[in-house]
Amino acid sequence: MADEAARAAARERQTQLTKPPGALGRLEDLAVWLAGWQGTLKPRVARVQAVVFAGNHGVTAQGVSPYPANVTAQMVANFQAGGAAINAMAEAFGYGLTVAPLDLDRPTRDFTTGPAMSEAETLHALNAGAAALAHDNDVVVLGEMGIGNTTVASALAAALFGGTGRDWAGPGTGLDAAGVSRKADVIDAALALHRDHCHGAFETLRRLGGRELAAIAGAVLAARRRRIPVVLDGAVATAAVAPLAAATSDALAHCVAGHVSAEPAHRRLLELIGLPPLLDLEMRLGEGTGAALAVQILKAAAATHAHMATFSEADVSNRDD
Amino acid sequence: MADEAARAAARERQTQLTKPPGALGRLEDLAVWLAGWQGTLKPRVARVQAVVFAGNHGVTAQGVSPYPANVTAQMVANFQAGGAAINAMAEAFGYGLTVAPLDLDRPTRDFTTGPAMSEAETLHALNAGAAALAHDNDVVVLGEMGIGNTTVASALAAALFGGTGRDWAGPGTGLDAAGVSRKADVIDAALALHRDHCHGAFETLRRLGGRELAAIAGAVLAARRRRIPVVLDGAVATAAVAPLAAATSDALAHCVAGHVSAEPAHRRLLELIGLPPLLDLEMRLGEGTGAALAVQILKAAAATHAHMATFSEADVSNRDD
Repeated sequence: MADEAARAAARERQTQLTKPPGALGRLEDLAVWLAGWQGTLKPRVARVQAVVFAGNHGVTAQGVSPYPANVTAQMVANFQAGGAAINAMAEAFGYGLTVAPLDLDRPTRDFTTGPAMSEAETLHALNAGAAALAHDNDVVVLGEMGIGNTTVASALAAALFGGTGRDWAGPGTGLDAAGVSRKADVIDAALALHRDHCHGAFETLRRLGGRELAAIAGAVLAARRRRIPVVLDGAVATAAVAPLAAATSDALAHCVAGHVSAEPAHRRLLELIGLPPLLDLEMRLGEGTGAALAVQILKAAAATHAHMATFSEADVSNRDD
Repeated sequence: MADEAARAAARERQTQLTKPPGALGRLEDLAVWLAGWQGTLKPRVARVQAVVFAGNHGVTAQGVSPYPANVTAQMVANFQAGGAAINAMAEAFGYGLTVAPLDLDRPTRDFTTGPAMSEAETLHALNAGAAALAHDNDVVVLGEMGIGNTTVASALAAALFGGTGRDWAGPGTGLDAAGVSRKADVIDAALALHRDHCHGAFETLRRLGGRELAAIAGAVLAARRRRIPVVLDGAVATAAVAPLAAATSDALAHCVAGHVSAEPAHRRLLELIGLPPLLDLEMRLGEGTGAALAVQILKAAAATHAHMATFSEADVSNRDD
């Protein structure tokens, strides 16, 4: 759990800084949140690791994406060569970047025909997620890449929170209305097969998830044990951890939602799991890009919290009342 | 005006980068906007100057702020000593910071009794704003400090767009309901005196503005001549340039709204002048802090635009259709 003494001390410090109470808005809450998880009065956002997990999905056989499935491996090569959006952001902001492709040559099973993964495969992906975390991180960004995985995210959301494929399907990388309708039907087929069997987070991720989603869940669990604050990215990353939130109400207390994406399911999912997003910029790329950008807000929160003068240090008059 | 050839080339480049079209959302539009104003295919957000203009206001005699008026000078000393929120952000993000106090020992006239400034004082403040811009900036952040200046901002908004003091007054640094009501009455008194005489941006700023607001307007005009993109801060900075927008519809085409603050007038003002904010974090400090944070979004926009690989460079398959 978070360090309550550090939280309380950070909250008290916020009242002494040279600004009207509350005037830094959500930055003040973020500084206190960081203090609690890092267990220190003055948290740091210096060593940032962005992790991009990649996986392939058998459900792409159902025509749920406008891009061919081999784009997942091509984009992993692009990450490794430094040419993707997350590379540009990590370079601009000085983050470490870890690219973690997960058995791309063995797509998960098409979940309209059976569980996406075996128990062993699910466990392996969870462990791969935990193992990807670097040591001595101040903050971790979790993102993903996987052609077909907004279909997976929507199926998970529907299984956890109710509703049909039509309620949760969105355009993903750019489906037209007919494509979204086909995607909704595919999700309904998966729900018909699995909904009654989704008992617990592990089984839900196994039946309706995918390797990169299970890895994100595993990384979030490992970050919790190590008290590392996590910034979640878009609809897929959020759906990956929603089974944890559904199972344990405070499972995501060490996580913030970096942004709300243009994928319609994301906003609803964030509301249902109680994570208000930091950014709303109509981004919908994944790769951790929205979360990577949001880390700059945490950086501002930590910098103002640590480096502003107090009223007494600066000899500034406080309120008249 | 913006460089249309650079804009068009930047827009074309966005379609070739390794991401689904539109997947970076507002970052794509920001990259194209920066390209147009900087006049180059690959704009930069490396040299950032934050300017904080400070002024004092005779209307503080009416009890419109919970803080005494001498806090303006105390906070300027805090800026100069490096202890304020904008200092911490500028340091964390590597910006230059210019602090520009404007005749703090001569508050403007209480605008419930006459125009806030003479023509000479207004012109002097406009010129001080223009003169504060450093050479060779990639982007400029414009912020302010001035006890009493949310009253000024609300009076300007009401004069430009209609409505009463009650429609536009907010808590500012933290007034209670009775304080907001008193502030609304003060604004109504100013409107009764000046509303029929606010012909044009200069006269509006002279009668109902203040030195730091006129300086922001002057800086925005100078930035336009030099084609420097501007990031505006909160309610006061936005009210300062609203007279320009009211006079000339595209006057703020080289500006973005860094954030929408918790001061209620700000959201309405941004809607009326057509500037959608980048951030919404319940900040209400001023000093340029919301805008300074938003520059990181511009930085991400420029970095992805300049450094991502194209589909052909990365040998990534584009859409099936």
